[in-house]
Amino acid sequence: MMTALKRILIGPPLKTEELKDQKIPKWKALPTLSSDALSSVAYGPEQILTVLAPIGAVALWYSLPIAGAIIFLLVMLGLSYRQIIHEYPGGGGAYIVSSDNLGTFGGLTAGSALLIDYTLTVAVSSSSGVAAISSAFPVLRPYTVLIGVFFVLLIMVLNLRGIRESGTIFSFPTYLFILGILGLVVTGLVKVLIQGVPSHVPPVTNHLPKGLTLFLLMRAFSSGCSSLTGVEAISNSTPNFKKPVKQNAARTLAVLVILLAILLAGVTGLAYLYHVVPNHETVLSQIAAHIFGHSVFYYYIQVTTALILLLACNTSFSAFPILASMMSDDKFLPRMFGVRGDRLNFSNGIIFLAVAAIVLIIAFEGNVNQLIPLYAIGVFLSFTLAQTGLVCRWIKNKPKHWLSKLVINLIGAILTFVVTIIFAVTKFTEGAWIVVILIPLLILIFYRIRRHFVLVGQELQIDIETDKPEEIESRIIIPVSGISKVVRNTIGYAKSIGGEAVALYIGFDEEDVKRMESQWEKWAPDVRLVTTVSRYRSVIRPLLRFIDHMGEDGKHRRITVLVPEFIPRQWWTKALHNQTGLMIRVILLFRKDVVISTVPYHLKH
Amino acid sequence: MMTALKRILIGPPLKTEELKDQKIPKWKALPTLSSDALSSVAYGPEQILTVLAPIGAVALWYSLPIAGAIIFLLVMLGLSYRQIIHEYPGGGGAYIVSSDNLGTFGGLTAGSALLIDYTLTVAVSSSSGVAAISSAFPVLRPYTVLIGVFFVLLIMVLNLRGIRESGTIFSFPTYLFILGILGLVVTGLVKVLIQGVPSHVPPVTNHLPKGLTLFLLMRAFSSGCSSLTGVEAISNSTPNFKKPVKQNAARTLAVLVILLAILLAGVTGLAYLYHVVPNHETVLSQIAAHIFGHSVFYYYIQVTTALILLLACNTSFSAFPILASMMSDDKFLPRMFGVRGDRLNFSNGIIFLAVAAIVLIIAFEGNVNQLIPLYAIGVFLSFTLAQTGLVCRWIKNKPKHWLSKLVINLIGAILTFVVTIIFAVTKFTEGAWIVVILIPLLILIFYRIRRHFVLVGQELQIDIETDKPEEIESRIIIPVSGISKVVRNTIGYAKSIGGEAVALYIGFDEEDVKRMESQWEKWAPDVRLVTTVSRYRSVIRPLLRFIDHMGEDGKHRRITVLVPEFIPRQWWTKALHNQTGLMIRVILLFRKDVVISTVPYHLKH
Repeated sequence: MMTALKRILIGPPLKTEELKDQKIPKWKALPTLSSDALSSVAYGPEQILTVLAPIGAVALWYSLPIAGAIIFLLVMLGLSYRQIIHEYPGGGGAYIVSSDNLGTFGGLTAGSALLIDYTLTVAVSSSSGVAAISSAFPVLRPYTVLIGVFFVLLIMVLNLRGIRESGTIFSFPTYLFILGILGLVVTGLVKVLIQGVPSHVPPVTNHLPKGLTLFLLMRAFSSGCSSLTGVEAISNSTPNFKKPVKQNAARTLAVLVILLAILLAGVTGLAYLYHVVPNHETVLSQIAAHIFGHSVFYYYIQVTTALILLLACNTSFSAFPILASMMSDDKFLPRMFGVRGDRLNFSNGIIFLAVAAIVLIIAFEGNVNQLIPLYAIGVFLSFTLAQTGLVCRWIKNKPKHWLSKLVINLIGAILTFVVTIIFAVTKFTEGAWIVVILIPLLILIFYRIRRHFVLVGQELQIDIETDKPEEIESRIIIPVSGISKVVRNTIGYAKSIGGEAVALYIGFDEEDVKRMESQWEKWAPDVRLVTTVSRYRSVIRPLLRFIDHMGEDGKHRRITVLVPEFIPRQWWTKALHNQTGLMIRVILLFRKDVVISTVPYHLKH
Repeated sequence: MMTALKRILIGPPLKTEELKDQKIPKWKALPTLSSDALSSVAYGPEQILTVLAPIGAVALWYSLPIAGAIIFLLVMLGLSYRQIIHEYPGGGGAYIVSSDNLGTFGGLTAGSALLIDYTLTVAVSSSSGVAAISSAFPVLRPYTVLIGVFFVLLIMVLNLRGIRESGTIFSFPTYLFILGILGLVVTGLVKVLIQGVPSHVPPVTNHLPKGLTLFLLMRAFSSGCSSLTGVEAISNSTPNFKKPVKQNAARTLAVLVILLAILLAGVTGLAYLYHVVPNHETVLSQIAAHIFGHSVFYYYIQVTTALILLLACNTSFSAFPILASMMSDDKFLPRMFGVRGDRLNFSNGIIFLAVAAIVLIIAFEGNVNQLIPLYAIGVFLSFTLAQTGLVCRWIKNKPKHWLSKLVINLIGAILTFVVTIIFAVTKFTEGAWIVVILIPLLILIFYRIRRHFVLVGQELQIDIETDKPEEIESRIIIPVSGISKVVRNTIGYAKSIGGEAVALYIGFDEEDVKRMESQWEKWAPDVRLVTTVSRYRSVIRPLLRFIDHMGEDGKHRRITVLVPEFIPRQWWTKALHNQTGLMIRVILLFRKDVVISTVPYHLKH
């Protein structure tokens, strides 16, 4: 039944040969790879305003220079990542670039930052998508968490099926979203030109408004930087582009940077002009409502926003399992992350990501504002590491034009490093501390996992020429509870595998034991029966004593314990019987040299 | 570590011989067996007032005739149960009496009613105990559920240790409580005599106050009947009394009935005189505060009330596991309920009861008023069945004075039946429906469990003379993942148990398989290796196909699959490895004739 359900949800298994790289054209690569970056327009500008609004209306003007600074940072990042594309045409995620140029520690730092970041992308994007929907349909607001969890599960199932083949459909939401926001910006600006600036726009003053400290400005800036998450996606996927690979990827990156800059500037500008302040309704929804009223255009904006945000979740669902599988191959993560599932994707990574994101959504009640302080710090840390990695590379390899390349990446590294620090400091108490603790913790865990694998690998290695399998003496113990079909079945099995077999009967009083001995004599005199009385009614302790006793003659031998197991026809009846077999199995598992054989007995009832 | 913790909490195991009946004197039997009944004074009168109070002050007078009716019922019950003591000196719980005289269905009805009732006694008594404490210390009110759960766990641990030997200490609270309430009643009455009736006592009118319907009066009556829960305890434990058993038990019952009648009348009367109305503070706490102020005496009343209520919980903790073990012996409940634990008590029943009561406390937020509608219906149903059982017995056996005995039990049966019906009708929508559904459901489950055990028993039975264990051909399959120490270990074991062994290698591509074949030829040419390519990367399906293939020649043979199992030194490293072994084991468990042998390999790391 479970298998049938799995087949319906996930589809039939695929052969290994069906795994091949798909090359995608630019027009399809842009929407797929940039949904994460572009969708952050839905929450980035809002985050700036969330910090500034409590100071008062006069502070809102500062969102404009902050957006300007963010756009400057975006352009610098674009230039830096352009160089990664050219240097790592095989795909240069921060984990690869850092491992390659900064060593294991750098790579693991980037890896842990990225794993955290991908998980947060899913939580933030789906929560933000739900916010877009519930802004349009306030009746859904009480179900925020439920809807968010449902979306994550939906995307998980789609990814377990493997959705790469249906990529074309998935490029629509991004284009529709870009179109919608551009339309919104143009209409909004035209309206302002015709009707004039709404009267309530506060005047710009020369000095900082009261209460607006440098700390707050930096906090607003770092919050806004969440708009930049996702710009690295294209450089990670360079090999998926059609030839000429590098040029196509670089051009797509350039388009992404320009588009994102326009959307960011547009949304922040409109928010300022229309004097929008965050409340339970999203900023984007308020802007759209101001400009379009509650017309079809308004709902178009909300729905496409929600769709591109879900698509952004999806980006993490393809990036996380791949990174986890690379780290598993490098022995930093458990084996299960490196195994391809029925549909050729890394299903364990997909499921792990979904569960982790759902835990976050539930813990933070699907509230984007509370998730943001955890977010972006990982992204910017990985940005910093990737740039620093390239800086080291230029110094080491000194290729053509290495100095100008170095300058670009050095500026990128310094800028992103500064943002990381600003983020960690200004958001520390709001939640960034979790990430600040989590990253070194993860690195430690990665090292310990690798250490374990290396040691076990050495331990298990053998020399084919000299290390041959050898027979050692073996003895069989059959705990019996009486004389029944189950016992007959188990004794029959013991006879069939040969070796010296002893039946062990543990009675609760002498009378019990005597009756059993005389019956056994009649029934199976050829099988040796050992009996013992357990005054404490435990069967485990006498069994363990008997096993110890067998080893006392000093001979090294293996002991096989045959444990009969009822397999009932109806599952619920299993719980009605004694669980002695299960207990014996669990406890013997930790005894050296004891093999536990589960001999099934299939009940007809 | 788990074992050590268990030892500290529960104590060392006891030998079976240490199980012997303890005979207890009357002065010790009264407090132990009557705590359930007497403690219900803490919530019974309050339940009457809870129903009447919303009508208005004039309705409160009706609590007096209602209490009168309940006391009359109590006396009738006392007379009826006196006869059970004489007829069943071996202990006559409703389950035994009903099974004996009304057949299996009657017995199971009583059994399910009692199991529900014992569970509710724990939930109601502990919640009521917490209410007594939080009335005295309102600061604890937010922690009601937590404290209730803690108390249940505490009583569970005490019962797992086995607390019978320390019975003397446990008789103090009951006597202290009786003393306290008697003192309260006397002081309260004297105060009224000296200071006169408080002026706000409403006048008695001739006609029913507006809004006080017959339905409400019956509801108040049935709520108040929760005071009678527990009067059957003495007749259940007749054999524990010293000789002359019957006379001592009957006298103790008489004392209980008289004491309970006095306490009930006293508390209800004081509540009326002092015009106490239920609110977040218990009625008993309000009365005590009126009479004693917040002096030492007040705290004495609250603490002894809480203690006797916890003792009442404890009564259920001794009754439930014994009933469950009897029903398990009769094959109506899973075996685990009939097994004595390390400390000779039925530990599974104790743990089950604690868990069920904790679930109730959490679900009903430790609110006594919400639990009461579920309570008492089971008690009165079991009362009715026990009395009816005796009526049938008198008619069938016709002993001396059978007619007068029959009249007493018939009246008892009719009265308790009427109360059961009143309860079910007036409380139906408030929660009684749960019990009305649950009882037949439990009966159905009991029947199905017994049917399973009977069928399995027949299936497993063998004829010692003819049904001997027989050897059948056996073959061993060893799934191998490469050549390593683990594989060497498993092959070595296969050699030691003899029989035809085949190593099965499942590769993911042809190259893989060829490399393995050539290496194997060098390493262990004497062990046959079968290889196969799994294009779907599953190892389970090719293994199952291979097993099927072995059975295809039509010969009946057993197949043993040797599954190597890593036993790491540190538990957490277990999760790092592939769980293929576990998967193979789970899936093969459902294959007929396949024996799964877990061959351990103990890692040094």
